Amino acid sequence: MKAIVKVMLKEGVLDPQGEAIRHALGTLGFGGVEGVRQGKVIEIALAGEDREKARAKVEAMCEKLLANTVIERYEIEVE
Amino acid sequence: MKAIVKVMLKEGVLDPQGEAIRHALGTLGFGGVEGVRQGKVIEIALAGEDREKARAKVEAMCEKLLANTVIERYEIEVE
Repeated sequence: MKAIVKVMLKEGVLDPQGEAIRHALGTLGFGGVEGVRQGKVIEIALAGEDREKARAKVEAMCEKLLANTVIERYEIEVE
Repeated sequence: MKAIVKVMLKEGVLDPQGEAIRHALGTLGFGGVEGVRQGKVIEIALAGEDREKARAKVEAMCEKLLANTVIERYEIEVE
C-alpha cells in the first residue's frame, strides 16, 4: 500500500523557497505568476492491507516526525 | 488558477532524504515501512483562465527551472 503525504507551510508563514522560485520564474520571462508556495511530498510504501489502519499510522508519523504542525499543514492520501 | 507540480527523484536514483526518514520512522517504532521517497511539491497561482495554456506554461517552467529532468520526473495538476 502506498501513502502520499503532502506537507506545506501554513498560510501566512513566510516561504522563502517559494519566493525564490517566483523571482526566478520572472527572471526567465514567465509572466502571470501570482504566487508560489513550495512544500514536501513524501511517498511511503507500507506493508499491510487495511487502509484505515494505514491512514492512522501515517497520521501519527506526520504528528511525530514528518510535519512541524506549528507552521506546517499536511494532507494524507492512501492508495 | 492553481497549478500543483510534484517533482520526485526517478526510480533508481538514490534518495538519501527518503532513506533518512525511513530510518527515523524505524527508530520511532513505526513498523511495516517498506520504503520512503521524498520529493517537492510546488503550488503556483497563475493569472488567466485557459487551463490548457496554463498547463503548457507550467510544463515549460518544469523543463527550464523546477525539475532536473535527468534525475527527476514531474507531474502537473491544474485546478
